[in-house]
Amino acid sequence: MATRRVTLGDRVIGGGAPVLVQTMANADTRDARRAIAQILSLVAAGAEAVRVAVPDERAAEALREIVPASPAPIIADVHFKAQLAVLAIQNGASGVRINPGNIGGPARVRAIAEAAGKAGAALRVGVNSGSLDREIAQKYGRGPEAMVESALKEIRAVEETGFRNLKVSLKASSVRDTVAAARLFASRSDIPQHLGVTEAGDLIAGVAKSAVAMGILLSEGVGDTIRVSLTAPPEEEVEAAWAILRALGLRRRGVEFISCPTCGRTEIDLAGLLKDVKKRLADLRAPLKIAVMGCVVNGPGEAREADLGVAGGRGKGSLFVKGERISSHPFAELAPALENWARRLAAEWEEKGARISPAGDAASRRDL
Amino acid sequence: MATRRVTLGDRVIGGGAPVLVQTMANADTRDARRAIAQILSLVAAGAEAVRVAVPDERAAEALREIVPASPAPIIADVHFKAQLAVLAIQNGASGVRINPGNIGGPARVRAIAEAAGKAGAALRVGVNSGSLDREIAQKYGRGPEAMVESALKEIRAVEETGFRNLKVSLKASSVRDTVAAARLFASRSDIPQHLGVTEAGDLIAGVAKSAVAMGILLSEGVGDTIRVSLTAPPEEEVEAAWAILRALGLRRRGVEFISCPTCGRTEIDLAGLLKDVKKRLADLRAPLKIAVMGCVVNGPGEAREADLGVAGGRGKGSLFVKGERISSHPFAELAPALENWARRLAAEWEEKGARISPAGDAASRRDL
Repeated sequence: MATRRVTLGDRVIGGGAPVLVQTMANADTRDARRAIAQILSLVAAGAEAVRVAVPDERAAEALREIVPASPAPIIADVHFKAQLAVLAIQNGASGVRINPGNIGGPARVRAIAEAAGKAGAALRVGVNSGSLDREIAQKYGRGPEAMVESALKEIRAVEETGFRNLKVSLKASSVRDTVAAARLFASRSDIPQHLGVTEAGDLIAGVAKSAVAMGILLSEGVGDTIRVSLTAPPEEEVEAAWAILRALGLRRRGVEFISCPTCGRTEIDLAGLLKDVKKRLADLRAPLKIAVMGCVVNGPGEAREADLGVAGGRGKGSLFVKGERISSHPFAELAPALENWARRLAAEWEEKGARISPAGDAASRRDL
Repeated sequence: MATRRVTLGDRVIGGGAPVLVQTMANADTRDARRAIAQILSLVAAGAEAVRVAVPDERAAEALREIVPASPAPIIADVHFKAQLAVLAIQNGASGVRINPGNIGGPARVRAIAEAAGKAGAALRVGVNSGSLDREIAQKYGRGPEAMVESALKEIRAVEETGFRNLKVSLKASSVRDTVAAARLFASRSDIPQHLGVTEAGDLIAGVAKSAVAMGILLSEGVGDTIRVSLTAPPEEEVEAAWAILRALGLRRRGVEFISCPTCGRTEIDLAGLLKDVKKRLADLRAPLKIAVMGCVVNGPGEAREADLGVAGGRGKGSLFVKGERISSHPFAELAPALENWARRLAAEWEEKGARISPAGDAASRRDL
């Protein structure tokens, strides 16, 4: 079933729009200056919407400064106190996330929906298996069915007010429950889904769990916006989210690196070369594919299929441009040579009108 | 279609056996002492079979020392020179991986199959989109169909000799091609598949690509053994492989950590606490679930569902054991208190006969 079209500030979620990349700031929202600096860093990394925690009135107040300074829509994350959600909306938040397990009953939810409707803000009903509505948990337990029932109960309260600009998330720390809940919800509602695996763990475990869940769901057409949750800097959440969308062939942004695993055949410092090249090209928005390969077995083949490639061995390496081997360089000169070519191709891409646009532009919908 | 049962040393691949975790050593195989040290480290990290590069006769020779010293089956990775594959088998390798794109025609492949048959070794036909057989590439291009045709051509040559102890891998740097090729092959053959995305990139991109591809395929029942390829230490490949299998609910090994993303509500050094706890418990093989949570919103709920949990806030935290909040501790004492409990539960698990066994034991097949 196609999901309905929901607006979040100037972005669209659902209704066939490209899957939107979200993250959550971890700077203290009450310190507006630091929060803004982090939001700018996250947007530069590719975040298309940023959620901030709003635990008290001072945080809700700070949104008056934060929202106008942010190039991406700001979503207020509110628990326990419904009044804070209303305040956040009045102070300019493009969206509010509430948790049915702790926001305090239908009357309060209706008040939030009315404020959101008046302001044109979006609302996310964010169910979390770790903090389910007590009544629901008693009746349905804590599995996928309980999560979906909790969401549907809250949605009914919201939609009674006529409000429709609604998203839903059904997060569990178990990938199986996350996948089952999202599938079940998709079969029962046209409301767009925000996908995420909650409390996913540190970098390796977190990326693996999120990529497995989102890979399965997005490949089935379930999911309209994603957040990778990591116990790690939020910039890495954004990098992981884009890596997942790129892997699925759904969206592209910036340089994609193809690089060898190291093995007993590797004769150069491949990880060092990759890191160097990645750092040199961090500012490029052009969706180039660059191969950084360490040996003669798969190196030349992969390097040939990328926009640019280097295949190294014994202190030197070859440079490939659009499939042609064009020069050979001592190891120390490989990265600068690659950078020169990458900037040349990126400039050509910009001149041609940057057909595949950086995150968030209207044109980026052509990626799909 | 169920895959056939293939043996690799004392391990089974295919025919319904648990998905086997592989990695590849990057120490120089010719330096047997260093190669053995790395193999032991990889096995401790959870590798159930280790591949080593065999680029020349000295490397093949070193297998005489390496194989008897390794607790896991050793697979020789051979390119270009068929004779090295025969030598590796004669020197004790449990398996050999050859690449149809560069091993040199059917007569040589038959010679390898005959040596493997005599020794009871396994053979992997490892197709790589970056180094396809030239004839095949001319006829079919470099996509999934070409990869499958290349594998089937090689398999025919091998099976003409009566050899059946065969696996196949169809690796591409594109997730879409990897998924499409594996599905296509599974519809046409009962030979077990080794899954991997080649040249997947650095940690975040590599884990994301591998987890998306393996998540989709394994959830469909395709794939019998996996290797995550990363431009990173191979121990991290093993950690990522287990994280993927755990996420899918296929296998468990060692402690699983559930932990918060950090957000504006976090009041403790959560990443530091997680790192500390992970280090303290790195040697535990018991499949415990431990929640390390930073706040009062989802913390207590998640901590309650794990075997053990801490939920922290403002300089102190609560400890949960099997769902019961049992004590409160100053922040500095949380990790030691958690460690004590984890070791107690792990000892109980060992006493009960360690029903879910560490990697590679026969009993581990009960996980599924």
